[in-house]
Amino acid sequence: MKRIAILGSTGSIGQSALSVVDAHPRRLQVVGLAAGENAERFAAQIARYQPAVVAMATSAAVDRLAGTLPAKAVMAGTGRDGLVAVASHPDAELVLCASSGTDALEAVLAAIELGKTIALANKEILVMAGGIVTDAARRRGVTILPVDSEHNAIHQCLHGRTIVELKRLILTASGGPFRGRSSSDLSGVSMEDALQHPTWRMGRKITIDSATLMNKGLEVIEARWLFGVRADQIDVVIHPQSVVHSLVEFVDGSLIAQLGITDMRLPIQYAFSYPERWEAPTASLDLVSAGRLEFQAPDTEAFPCLRLAYRALEAEHSLPVVLNAANEIAVAQFLDRRLGFTAIPQVIEATMNAHRPAEVGTLSAVREVDRWARERAQEIARAVELKV
Amino acid sequence: MKRIAILGSTGSIGQSALSVVDAHPRRLQVVGLAAGENAERFAAQIARYQPAVVAMATSAAVDRLAGTLPAKAVMAGTGRDGLVAVASHPDAELVLCASSGTDALEAVLAAIELGKTIALANKEILVMAGGIVTDAARRRGVTILPVDSEHNAIHQCLHGRTIVELKRLILTASGGPFRGRSSSDLSGVSMEDALQHPTWRMGRKITIDSATLMNKGLEVIEARWLFGVRADQIDVVIHPQSVVHSLVEFVDGSLIAQLGITDMRLPIQYAFSYPERWEAPTASLDLVSAGRLEFQAPDTEAFPCLRLAYRALEAEHSLPVVLNAANEIAVAQFLDRRLGFTAIPQVIEATMNAHRPAEVGTLSAVREVDRWARERAQEIARAVELKV
Repeated sequence: MKRIAILGSTGSIGQSALSVVDAHPRRLQVVGLAAGENAERFAAQIARYQPAVVAMATSAAVDRLAGTLPAKAVMAGTGRDGLVAVASHPDAELVLCASSGTDALEAVLAAIELGKTIALANKEILVMAGGIVTDAARRRGVTILPVDSEHNAIHQCLHGRTIVELKRLILTASGGPFRGRSSSDLSGVSMEDALQHPTWRMGRKITIDSATLMNKGLEVIEARWLFGVRADQIDVVIHPQSVVHSLVEFVDGSLIAQLGITDMRLPIQYAFSYPERWEAPTASLDLVSAGRLEFQAPDTEAFPCLRLAYRALEAEHSLPVVLNAANEIAVAQFLDRRLGFTAIPQVIEATMNAHRPAEVGTLSAVREVDRWARERAQEIARAVELKV
Repeated sequence: MKRIAILGSTGSIGQSALSVVDAHPRRLQVVGLAAGENAERFAAQIARYQPAVVAMATSAAVDRLAGTLPAKAVMAGTGRDGLVAVASHPDAELVLCASSGTDALEAVLAAIELGKTIALANKEILVMAGGIVTDAARRRGVTILPVDSEHNAIHQCLHGRTIVELKRLILTASGGPFRGRSSSDLSGVSMEDALQHPTWRMGRKITIDSATLMNKGLEVIEARWLFGVRADQIDVVIHPQSVVHSLVEFVDGSLIAQLGITDMRLPIQYAFSYPERWEAPTASLDLVSAGRLEFQAPDTEAFPCLRLAYRALEAEHSLPVVLNAANEIAVAQFLDRRLGFTAIPQVIEATMNAHRPAEVGTLSAVREVDRWARERAQEIARAVELKV
């Protein structure tokens, strides 16, 4: 029986994770849950899984939950403190970090310090503090299992292999809903268009990131930290069918790929079961009915976010923090209909240009750069907005 | 320095193997070579690689070689005895069996008894005596490394995994030059047409086997022995581009695939370098320029050889021996223009129907069934020929 805590249990990944628990009731037990604002869904999860510890993002959310909390469950707190408490609970062996944004950064570090295995579905944490997090994991001998389908695929492809055999990682990208469009075609696209992902059903922020290719850019940075490779060892290829989830190339010219249906329960279960594999809760991939698999070079003219991510990664230090923070602001503004689609990379690039990269060896340094970048991105977004 | 012996050095695989040696002169040393009839090419190889022991198929071939043999090289003999002597040479750590047909069966068993690693490029040996060979390897703790690109791919995909995690193997097949044709379209095809393989350059026998899909059928049987799986755990999918060399599916629904360019030096080098990987002597696979990858169900109506191979595998015992022997006869007759293309499966099926399956636990029992099947297939082929 593996005892798990889930940060972000009411989100898309969190719910899929709980359905993996449902499929393996004798192998998995939920001991902690943390959610954002959705008290109704969270109350149902608490009633069903009877965790020992829970947390929510805000006091207002906790108030909405109040009457429904069973006697057994301890409400550990709100905000980052709540996340830390759930991730640190002594019963939890594995912590799935499925909350979006960077709020769970301290919680992930706390779990690592306590020697707990991390299943990481959140990419912003490694983008912001990849060095700090992976250093801590190395020091404590903690395994970080990637849940993102691409990194999960690469983890599977590298299993049993050593890093000296590795030539490069190849992350596949669906290309999003706007694949094949030129920059000028993209200026007028709506929020509704951007939220129509062709192959994956995901949360709103990550769906927009997929449409801009920033999602792939963040994954490139994440891959650098998860697998200890250089920026020039990470390639991106557009693969509209999302059947090949990613590949690795070894020094001898062999490529190993992981393929599967587009269902997040697969990589989540892999992280929960690792180093074992358990029976699938899902249908098999049928290669014949999957049809043709295509691979194209990414268009970094029409989708500059990918180029910006490589620039941030190559500069290292604080620039990935700025990239991520500015992206979160720009996407939020886009989702509020206050920014056009093509303004997203403009805001990010302008924020990056305004930043003087510095080392960020501590969490407080990261948080400070993050704060600066968010403020600056807000200002820049407002200026862009005025111009529209 | 890994010291290797090559059985079948003047053939297609043998020559590729020597070019891998050329690429890694500090890692590989040739200590033994055995060839068929091509004395001229063999003399050049002996002069270049200076093996300690050599052999040829016939005395006539040895006579043609005679004057060119350097003092250092011992001519160990001819026929099966010659192969056994080269494979058993005390200096050889790894024996690459790249001769076609079943002549090297005794040599492979002798090498296994002496604890040498086997790199197996010959599929007939496992089709004929898979149980005997793999039992001996298990008993002696000997690794059999598959060089066939499909099995080599599966070996790579299974690396670091246990058999309990495995759901099925998926062997890819190019479909050969006649993919998409119906049975009636196939009756008039010529030997020249059948020798035009779309993606691989190989010897004549295996190229015809690819055109009939018998090659894939033999590979299904080979896979059963190499990986210890049941017939119903082995699927075949047509993949005309030959970019994905094969796949495995695990119990959790994940597929792992190996991809690469179609160059036999890749799997040969993998077998030579295993468990390491060495730098490629070849170009990388470019997924973007590889174009679309397609997967189709095999047509066992038009290509009955695949169905016959499954039938032989499910019956086990002596039927795979009969399948293989009858196929060798039928293909030889086709290459002699004495049999039509669609008569190949007819001869095989009629020979299988005429056989009463029995256990074949010894090499002499295998050889006896083989002899019977060849004679019977000859008779049947003559009868078919007369009808044409």
